[in-house]
Amino acid sequence: MLADQASHTVDAFHRGRFYLLQPAAKGHRSGVDAMILASVVQNEFSGRVADLGAGAGAAGLAVLARCERASAVLIERSGFMAAFARESLALPENAAFSGRSEVIEADVTLTGKARNAAGLADNSFDFAIMNPPFNLPTDRSTPDPVKAEAHVMTQGMMEQWIRTAAAIVRPGGAIGIIARPTSITELLDALKGRFGGLVIVPVQPRPQEAAIRIVIKGTRGSRAGLTLSPALIMHHETGNGFTERADAINNGLTSLF
Amino acid sequence: MLADQASHTVDAFHRGRFYLLQPAAKGHRSGVDAMILASVVQNEFSGRVADLGAGAGAAGLAVLARCERASAVLIERSGFMAAFARESLALPENAAFSGRSEVIEADVTLTGKARNAAGLADNSFDFAIMNPPFNLPTDRSTPDPVKAEAHVMTQGMMEQWIRTAAAIVRPGGAIGIIARPTSITELLDALKGRFGGLVIVPVQPRPQEAAIRIVIKGTRGSRAGLTLSPALIMHHETGNGFTERADAINNGLTSLF
Repeated sequence: MLADQASHTVDAFHRGRFYLLQPAAKGHRSGVDAMILASVVQNEFSGRVADLGAGAGAAGLAVLARCERASAVLIERSGFMAAFARESLALPENAAFSGRSEVIEADVTLTGKARNAAGLADNSFDFAIMNPPFNLPTDRSTPDPVKAEAHVMTQGMMEQWIRTAAAIVRPGGAIGIIARPTSITELLDALKGRFGGLVIVPVQPRPQEAAIRIVIKGTRGSRAGLTLSPALIMHHETGNGFTERADAINNGLTSLF
Repeated sequence: MLADQASHTVDAFHRGRFYLLQPAAKGHRSGVDAMILASVVQNEFSGRVADLGAGAGAAGLAVLARCERASAVLIERSGFMAAFARESLALPENAAFSGRSEVIEADVTLTGKARNAAGLADNSFDFAIMNPPFNLPTDRSTPDPVKAEAHVMTQGMMEQWIRTAAAIVRPGGAIGIIARPTSITELLDALKGRFGGLVIVPVQPRPQEAAIRIVIKGTRGSRAGLTLSPALIMHHETGNGFTERADAINNGLTSLF
């Protein structure tokens, strides 16, 4: 029950097309990264999406809001965050998703029978999306353990997360990842032999600035080569407003591909 | 002697600041890729550059033409192409480089004593640049065996080339690579533990088109993270002219970094 939990906020996303109940101070608060990740799923997508490490469910809900024939399973290890995801799905404002969404409280790094037993059956998804923790353990740490758990990437975590994605996504299904550029070597190594036809989109704050994120989309079992697409530019050379494309993506009006 | 060889052309680069003697039909003919590769070396560079797989020497000569305090060693396995490199250096138009350039006819994949004996001593260079062969053996092959040798990447070649670069470049020295985006996983794996502080620059034909090349610069022994820089855009959305930046790079008026 949320009354027992930390104070929370209810935030509108996609100009009010869905709402998210999030912890006000503790835990991970979602924003633009989750909206960009969700945009990896194409508009016409129809099928079952796994949101791995879903937090309060921002990316999964963003997919449901834009793709009317999608269903989503929000997978989150932290009971604290999973409770927010359940409450988000229960909000009356999100009633449109009630028949096509669920929360599974499970660790993405589970393997084999334990993973299946948790509800993550092999080849049972058409798409997996993930925004894995991206701080190195050596980065300045946060005093909040829930936030730290959401943000700190441990050794081999990319490999473990992508291994799970490869297990639960059917052949021909897809993966979408948002991560820091510095993780690219680890990501590509983990994707190798599992997902191919990779498309990388750098995400730059401004036209003249280096990427702060990369988005990768791949196809399970594909042997096609890699594409390095033009960057998604969030802001113009100066000023705080979004570019037209960034605004459309942030508000669920278009997909990245 | 070239009189015995295939017909050749003498081509001006950098608006006449250096010339290249190249085979007219057989072998690899250099162009914009070599000029972009050379631009990885910063304007103020002073030191010894290894041009690995130099062909007729386009990239190495482009560095010499822009960086007056640089010296270059052109390393080329093909005797046919190395002869063109020697003749290029001997052209009166290239007299300015005569005291600071040489050709070594050697295979970049040599190791250990054989590599040292060929003139590629450990830690003896400040910079290594390379434009490795990039066609897969399964790509449509060319009937010209010299051109095929210059263009076909064999299994493990990236690893072998970068291993040589790591051996001959001193700690703190640099590597510059131009390659196809599809080689990025293999490149990053080969660079890992050898060159760090990587900076990747996508090269896009036009703003709206995917990259056709990537340029990677790295520092020997650095443990710094990776940067994904804004793309170098060669042409505008329409039309055949170079962008201002591409023109400056192609003509040796600026460095990429």
